[in-house]
Amino acid sequence: MTEEPVYHVDGDLVAADEATVNVRDRGFLYGDAAFETMRAYGGDVFEWEAHMDRLAETCEVLGLDHGLSDGDLRERVDETLAANTLQEAYIRLSITRGVQPGKLTPDEAVDPTVVVIVSELPRGGQGSQPVWDGPATLQTVKTKRIPDASIPARAKTHNYLNGILARLELRVTGADEALLVDAEGHVTEGATSNLFFVRDNALRTPSLDGPVLPGITRRVVLELAREEGIPVEEGQYSPEEIRSADEVFLTNSTWELRPVETVDGLSVSEADDGSTGTAAGPVTTLLSRLFDARVESAYYD
Amino acid sequence: MTEEPVYHVDGDLVAADEATVNVRDRGFLYGDAAFETMRAYGGDVFEWEAHMDRLAETCEVLGLDHGLSDGDLRERVDETLAANTLQEAYIRLSITRGVQPGKLTPDEAVDPTVVVIVSELPRGGQGSQPVWDGPATLQTVKTKRIPDASIPARAKTHNYLNGILARLELRVTGADEALLVDAEGHVTEGATSNLFFVRDNALRTPSLDGPVLPGITRRVVLELAREEGIPVEEGQYSPEEIRSADEVFLTNSTWELRPVETVDGLSVSEADDGSTGTAAGPVTTLLSRLFDARVESAYYD
Repeated sequence: MTEEPVYHVDGDLVAADEATVNVRDRGFLYGDAAFETMRAYGGDVFEWEAHMDRLAETCEVLGLDHGLSDGDLRERVDETLAANTLQEAYIRLSITRGVQPGKLTPDEAVDPTVVVIVSELPRGGQGSQPVWDGPATLQTVKTKRIPDASIPARAKTHNYLNGILARLELRVTGADEALLVDAEGHVTEGATSNLFFVRDNALRTPSLDGPVLPGITRRVVLELAREEGIPVEEGQYSPEEIRSADEVFLTNSTWELRPVETVDGLSVSEADDGSTGTAAGPVTTLLSRLFDARVESAYYD
Repeated sequence: MTEEPVYHVDGDLVAADEATVNVRDRGFLYGDAAFETMRAYGGDVFEWEAHMDRLAETCEVLGLDHGLSDGDLRERVDETLAANTLQEAYIRLSITRGVQPGKLTPDEAVDPTVVVIVSELPRGGQGSQPVWDGPATLQTVKTKRIPDASIPARAKTHNYLNGILARLELRVTGADEALLVDAEGHVTEGATSNLFFVRDNALRTPSLDGPVLPGITRRVVLELAREEGIPVEEGQYSPEEIRSADEVFLTNSTWELRPVETVDGLSVSEADDGSTGTAAGPVTTLLSRLFDARVESAYYD
């Protein structure tokens, strides 16, 4: 990576310090913007098409007809990676509704603002170093996940205060990730991650029927488990089921699979046999290796 | 107002076209920012202290210790008004958590970004012209108000997609304002306004026990009503009670009091006697005049 990072804003490559949006951009005024967090392995974008599908879904929820093709967006991402001489990278691609006349009501005619931010990550694939420091400590928080009837969870937008309020609750405990429940008390997801757990050798994760972001890594992990013949269940779960699980892990594009060491201060699996939980149980370890193998074969071979 | 508007960004007056924030500002990335919409009458800010109290409340919810005094903020607002030679103005004052290292979890150490945007409005007070074109058409929408347990409604932040999704539903009907109900079906507020209605000569408005922004104009209107001896009730109401009300009006800092002409396509008060509802009933008219008189005496005398 060059010493001074370069971002892509509104069609141009600009030095990171000078990468700005107008204060009247709706992305700033209201968080009126769609985004995707992606990962580049060996210079290529992991699951690009899946990210573009989800971006389209977000824009559909927002009634945001930006008029840009996937190819155009890909060009901006590729240009940004090249300008920073990055092969292994975190990528954040945002499309805002731009500056519009009037106030809150959006105009149908949109001159979108497109922003690409990148930063360096370790190499993925087999033998890779994870981006996280260690297994996560997970804490159930009081902040409830926003219901789909208020803002659909499948929309990934610049309105991220729900997750920020959840993370603020961790200032007391110092936990790494906040686990949000919905209005009915069922677990949904972390502030920036999807939740998985293992009980009776089956892999379980909150169903997308609840307010849960359809994570790309989540989908890949479910695919890998099914291919491997691991029983998979998407359902509704209580925090107590997570606290008493045999294994727990989190997923997102940058973390990939991140084992969870403690839930609400309790060591994972300790509750069962009194032994201290290991950082990653056998199902988590297997799925992590399968994930690395898929990345290796798809992006480095 | 000068031909080229001037905004205040991070301590400096800058031409509106060049008024920007960095793309890594958390106000842009996550809508992680507090704001107030205010109105200047005769060069002075209406209810400045009440706005500062609410801003402090928002920042408390966000765990955002910006370290700026009310006096400092007032200086920026006054400088912006002066630079645009504005006496009668819309003012939007935003404080973001600025650029921080790391991702979603906010650092306690904050270098805030302060933005002041202004634009011209008609003179307020007695004999004033309202900023709105005419009485509002109000439409109950499917989008539900975000519950306080997810993001407290008393926090006025750059996360405004809930209101935007509500307004998007109006593309079909062309109504002016969306009326959001909460998870239990009680009416809460408009996308950018508080709701009042009159039944049996009493003024009624959704209680702040529900997910309702404690509007400054809302509070002033309640004060004026109590001073005038009008019975006042803050409670829980159904959409049906609004549809069958004798009078309905909306409040916010720029609209002041805006009469509602139709609710869900039905003329206000028409349901009772078959006559077409007038633009503003007697209680609405009285309160509007009292509001104008208060503004006149406080800001123009």
